[in-house]
Amino acid sequence: MSKWVKHNGIIRTQGLCGDFINFPSSTAQQTAEALEKLDGILTEARLQWKHLVAITIYIANISEENFEEMNGVYDKWVDPEGLPTRLCVEAKMGHGAGVKIRAEAL
Amino acid sequence: MSKWVKHNGIIRTQGLCGDFINFPSSTAQQTAEALEKLDGILTEARLQWKHLVAITIYIANISEENFEEMNGVYDKWVDPEGLPTRLCVEAKMGHGAGVKIRAEAL
Amino acid sequence: MSKWVKHNGIIRTQGLCGDFINFPSSTAQQTAEALEKLDGILTEARLQWKHLVAITIYIANISEENFEEMNGVYDKWVDPEGLPTRLCVEAKMGHGAGVKIRAEAL
Repeated sequence: MSKWVKHNGIIRTQGLCGDFINFPSSTAQQTAEALEKLDGILTEARLQWKHLVAITIYIANISEENFEEMNGVYDKWVDPEGLPTRLCVEAKMGHGAGVKIRAEAL
Repeated sequence: MSKWVKHNGIIRTQGLCGDFINFPSSTAQQTAEALEKLDGILTEARLQWKHLVAITIYIANISEENFEEMNGVYDKWVDPEGLPTRLCVEAKMGHGAGVKIRAEAL
Repeated sequence: MSKWVKHNGIIRTQGLCGDFINFPSSTAQQTAEALEKLDGILTEARLQWKHLVAITIYIANISEENFEEMNGVYDKWVDPEGLPTRLCVEAKMGHGAGVKIRAEAL
């Protein structure tokens, strides 16, 4: 699987997740690890968080608690001066992943 | 959260929803309110419904009844001469939202 | 519903599915039929599988068995020299569809 692609100045990535295979991990932890991967991709692409234009967050169990955990981590990463459009939905994922992320930056 | 972004002639928006916080609201009503927001974005961007190229509709409970309710509202908005690609899936969303929409226009 | 649209060199399609209306059909079968449709779209657009940059697969029931079935079919279609970014999530869909696909190629 490709990590990200670039075309016409747009970076696309999806399927970013934390490590949920080796041990149970919280929504906060998996969100943090997925967003660290996104941060790495932005860096590779010589972009910053303010260049993020769209982010979709899939959570396996969107309880109020998990939703707040995710938001707490999310708010630390995004740039208030360049907030992306955002969508967050619950979705069960293969092999028990708790969080996955899709994003576009330009 | 940004409402929409434009790049290379493409308008992207996501997370559009109706008012589900203040009172219980039907799938039809939330769909109508979300599509009104999309209509406002298209207008701001000086586009028409025929310029919509992709729409994804997330429904919290995709019962046959809700699916038909959504379709009934949807069919009133879209332009038969320029129908977008469409995907509709069930997904639970934060704070009990019943309908959310993602769209691209150009 | 439009099958696909092209803009700035990007092909977008979504909602591709197998025939689940007329008879019960496995995840493998519906995946195969949806990917055949994607293959037809790529051909119409004069593109190849290596040009696929993003694919999202929605499965109505993402059990380990169904996930493996889907992967088995998927691996036969994609081009190892040009793998797309991928996201696979569980989502219930209208009228009992078992598999739906969204994709972008360029």
